[in-house]
Amino acid sequence: MKTSIPTATIARLPIYLRGLGDVPPGQTTCSSDELAASAGVNSAQVRKDLSYLNVSGVRGVGYSVDELREQLSTALGLKQGYAVAVVGAGNLGTALSNYGGFARWGFTVAGVFDIDDAKVGREVGGHLVRPLADLEEIVRQRNIAIGIVATPAQAAQQVADRFVAAGLRSILNFAPTVLQVPDGVSVRRVDFSTELQILTFHLQQAGN
Amino acid sequence: MKTSIPTATIARLPIYLRGLGDVPPGQTTCSSDELAASAGVNSAQVRKDLSYLNVSGVRGVGYSVDELREQLSTALGLKQGYAVAVVGAGNLGTALSNYGGFARWGFTVAGVFDIDDAKVGREVGGHLVRPLADLEEIVRQRNIAIGIVATPAQAAQQVADRFVAAGLRSILNFAPTVLQVPDGVSVRRVDFSTELQILTFHLQQAGN
Repeated sequence: MKTSIPTATIARLPIYLRGLGDVPPGQTTCSSDELAASAGVNSAQVRKDLSYLNVSGVRGVGYSVDELREQLSTALGLKQGYAVAVVGAGNLGTALSNYGGFARWGFTVAGVFDIDDAKVGREVGGHLVRPLADLEEIVRQRNIAIGIVATPAQAAQQVADRFVAAGLRSILNFAPTVLQVPDGVSVRRVDFSTELQILTFHLQQAGN
Repeated sequence: MKTSIPTATIARLPIYLRGLGDVPPGQTTCSSDELAASAGVNSAQVRKDLSYLNVSGVRGVGYSVDELREQLSTALGLKQGYAVAVVGAGNLGTALSNYGGFARWGFTVAGVFDIDDAKVGREVGGHLVRPLADLEEIVRQRNIAIGIVATPAQAAQQVADRFVAAGLRSILNFAPTVLQVPDGVSVRRVDFSTELQILTFHLQQAGN
């Protein structure tokens, strides 16, 4: 696979994969138009995106749902499964620890941590909440590859630093703040306001 | 404003706005390169996206941070403020009701609802949890414009139907399922797995 895939293309691959999951049972092919709708691009962009994976559809037929699912899963590294650590055992961390959408893609929550002694020792989503001091050991023991920051904004940088010190190179940040990390560490930020703003754009266009 | 703005452009406008918020205090201009990095596109795409808003930067200088923030906020309809209803008073709904990232953009949680009688009457994020039967009345009373689905997947469609019946035309869906809504109703879905998959793409590329 080429390593020069554009960032925006990479960000659309999971959307295409999700789009395949939304295809009705029994439908074995999927057109680039259908995939385009799921990702908010045009069908030419879909074909271009998938060409980076050396995937091409059949004219007038589209893509095989099963094959494309396989190819996208492979490209995204989902076949091997990944263990994740959640730091922050508040409401969001608890929701993430119980989140039904992870297992489907091979993600396993393998540790839940908090800096608050009052939360340490509780059970959250079937996990004993551990002190942050245990992070490095558990990351090593359980082969954790991804750290999730589910703390308030003011604690997030400290947690990211601990993730980096424990050797993690992938961080998913739910705190509404920018994290500083060394080169070679990837951070993705989930901001619930972003999606709300897309909705208000449309509301405003409709004159509400 | 033109109504024919591409969907992908609309989805990037909040990212640009968030990028402006990440500019260090004292920096008054922002280049298209900086905005491009925040959204994972190239600078030509940034200029094209902003041209839909009739916004153009100054060659060699970029965009005025304050002006662009104002223009994006206006385009996204954020100046007037919007009230939202959260249905589902579990961990995720509670986290959303307390989410610090909403108020900054003018979003106010104006009602929290649940179908579970055991949760009705509790206080969540400063809100009394109400029965879903009260939804329509509260939407009208408090001028709620957006409904947030924070329930398990199996309850999500029922909640979406209630939102539509209550007159809402914008739904933010956190349940890992596809919602069926009539034409004219916008749904955005937040899927935590999507961001994890972008991280695993990079992990795999790095040979982990």
